[in-house]
Amino acid sequence: MKALVYRGPGKKAWETVPDPALKDPTDAIVKVETTTICGTDLHILKGDVPAVTDGRILGHEGVGVITEVGSECAKVKVGDRVIISCVSKCGTCSYCREGLTSHCQTLGGIGWIFGHLIDGTQAEYVRVPFADNGLIPLPEGVTAEQGTMLSDILPTGYEIGVLNGAVKKGDVVAVIGTGPVGLAAIMTARNSGASKVIAVDGNKFRLEAARDFGATDTLDVNEGHDVVEELKKLSSDGLGVDVSIEAVGIPATFGTALDAVRPGGHVANVGVHGEPVQFPLERDWINNLTITTGLVNATTAPQLLEQITSGEIAPEKFVTHHFTFDQFDEAYDTFSRAADESALKVIISAG
Amino acid sequence: MKALVYRGPGKKAWETVPDPALKDPTDAIVKVETTTICGTDLHILKGDVPAVTDGRILGHEGVGVITEVGSECAKVKVGDRVIISCVSKCGTCSYCREGLTSHCQTLGGIGWIFGHLIDGTQAEYVRVPFADNGLIPLPEGVTAEQGTMLSDILPTGYEIGVLNGAVKKGDVVAVIGTGPVGLAAIMTARNSGASKVIAVDGNKFRLEAARDFGATDTLDVNEGHDVVEELKKLSSDGLGVDVSIEAVGIPATFGTALDAVRPGGHVANVGVHGEPVQFPLERDWINNLTITTGLVNATTAPQLLEQITSGEIAPEKFVTHHFTFDQFDEAYDTFSRAADESALKVIISAG
Repeated sequence: MKALVYRGPGKKAWETVPDPALKDPTDAIVKVETTTICGTDLHILKGDVPAVTDGRILGHEGVGVITEVGSECAKVKVGDRVIISCVSKCGTCSYCREGLTSHCQTLGGIGWIFGHLIDGTQAEYVRVPFADNGLIPLPEGVTAEQGTMLSDILPTGYEIGVLNGAVKKGDVVAVIGTGPVGLAAIMTARNSGASKVIAVDGNKFRLEAARDFGATDTLDVNEGHDVVEELKKLSSDGLGVDVSIEAVGIPATFGTALDAVRPGGHVANVGVHGEPVQFPLERDWINNLTITTGLVNATTAPQLLEQITSGEIAPEKFVTHHFTFDQFDEAYDTFSRAADESALKVIISAG
Repeated sequence: MKALVYRGPGKKAWETVPDPALKDPTDAIVKVETTTICGTDLHILKGDVPAVTDGRILGHEGVGVITEVGSECAKVKVGDRVIISCVSKCGTCSYCREGLTSHCQTLGGIGWIFGHLIDGTQAEYVRVPFADNGLIPLPEGVTAEQGTMLSDILPTGYEIGVLNGAVKKGDVVAVIGTGPVGLAAIMTARNSGASKVIAVDGNKFRLEAARDFGATDTLDVNEGHDVVEELKKLSSDGLGVDVSIEAVGIPATFGTALDAVRPGGHVANVGVHGEPVQFPLERDWINNLTITTGLVNATTAPQLLEQITSGEIAPEKFVTHHFTFDQFDEAYDTFSRAADESALKVIISAG
């Protein structure tokens, strides 16, 4: 088969490689129909994720059709059209039983293994471990593109942003950073009853997209705002927002998220950080804050699927660009310059 | 009357001052029977709390008898023996209605006003605002000493440590720092079903006390332990404790609390911090942590009272030293050298 293979920092190639084969009786093989690129894939390509080594097939998102199942697969069967969850999970360890599948102990404490510790989904075929747990049947009426947004981006924004942030009806929510994961948080926060969702970014295209995803207000950080003061003004009583969702991953935006939240509020960190941040506990010890971090568990995909079929959320809005498998270079090029290219998520299809 | 008056950094005096009088119809006057000293009082005396100005009567804890009530007091009446809650609260603002009385908006966003923004309880009499909300009747069989521990210390350890940390049955809990607030967390964590409560400190007397308060294990930081490694070893599966409660208030102990917690765990900060801490988000963004901070709301005092009357908790264990009102200097002296004096909480009585 053909697959996108990581060849060391800065290098990848659409190569001919051996077809994947079943290894464990709980495995399935999926013929990939659509996949996409995540910000994490760009980090890997830069060499920022040393666990990813030369020869690894990239990607952890996608939709496809099952072509083979191991003898212990009880739920999934050949011919099923499925969403490939970015998080693999044994389903039986203590972490999986608590719903913290992102820390599956059977997989060594990290449920994200596709395109990381095992070969991924940017390929014609992919081997899926614990297939009964990691593959979600795509219901009638949900497209492959919509389904691909349920592999990672939409559950991440919802679980790590909205649910961890404990967004409730009537809340004023700030989303700092409106890349795809910030937009996913905006879409699902609005659908969770937030009365106001304020998008903060420095990119006009993304701020416009944020409105389309449900933001009620936008703040362009390049327009000379005192962002924290503006967020407080937009809060219900001037004391700060109920929930800040950090979706960038740098110290400055984490600081904004903390500064803008009211006493008793929640700061949900979604951003992937590369350095420590300063936490002003000399100010915040008294403020009854709750700060959360996390990797997605992807356990809400079924719930989000229902929201798609009922028309409450429309994840097809993420998809701005389409490519085929022979255009992976163009797809990466577009996604890596997403803000300039007015790109959100790109779909790469078997064609 | 006589009262302990703050006279600028390092200075206090047991002085004759005017008796307090009702100011608002929701006020009551309480004749103080017992009071105690809090670590915060020591901070104030050092000049660390600039809002406390020359002439302020100190103290925010105590038990006494009501001698006068305003016309709008509906629950409390003259002659009632009551616990004076350290947190005052209007009971009607949005924060009070949500149970976040520590941020009562009617009081300017801070419910802790005794010995801070208004005259306190280290006096023969004290004026109590919103008396219906801030005075808790002392039930038969609960002593004034026990009741005094419900003004602040026991609710602080329970609400900001145990409840914020979401301690549940079977959890392994680390309590970093075994001063009175750490001991309060130990006592209430154990009573909340924690299977193991590990006390971490560098003081042998306090570590012994920790065992008496319910700690199942102790770690003396002066004995060359790698505390984080030891805490992990004591956890259920070596991955880290379920809940870390920080009860010191310095960057190093906050770091230990973070380092020792398992993926998916809780870090409850109880310590009062004087400087920012470093939060290694480059490590912890992925770890599904929940970190909480807070000032006590003291809303759990009735629940804790029931635990005293049923014999589940024994807050009289806090009281190591007794003084009378004419011995405030000795009482402060003992408390400020608490670790050396084998002191936990001191009770100062009208005598």
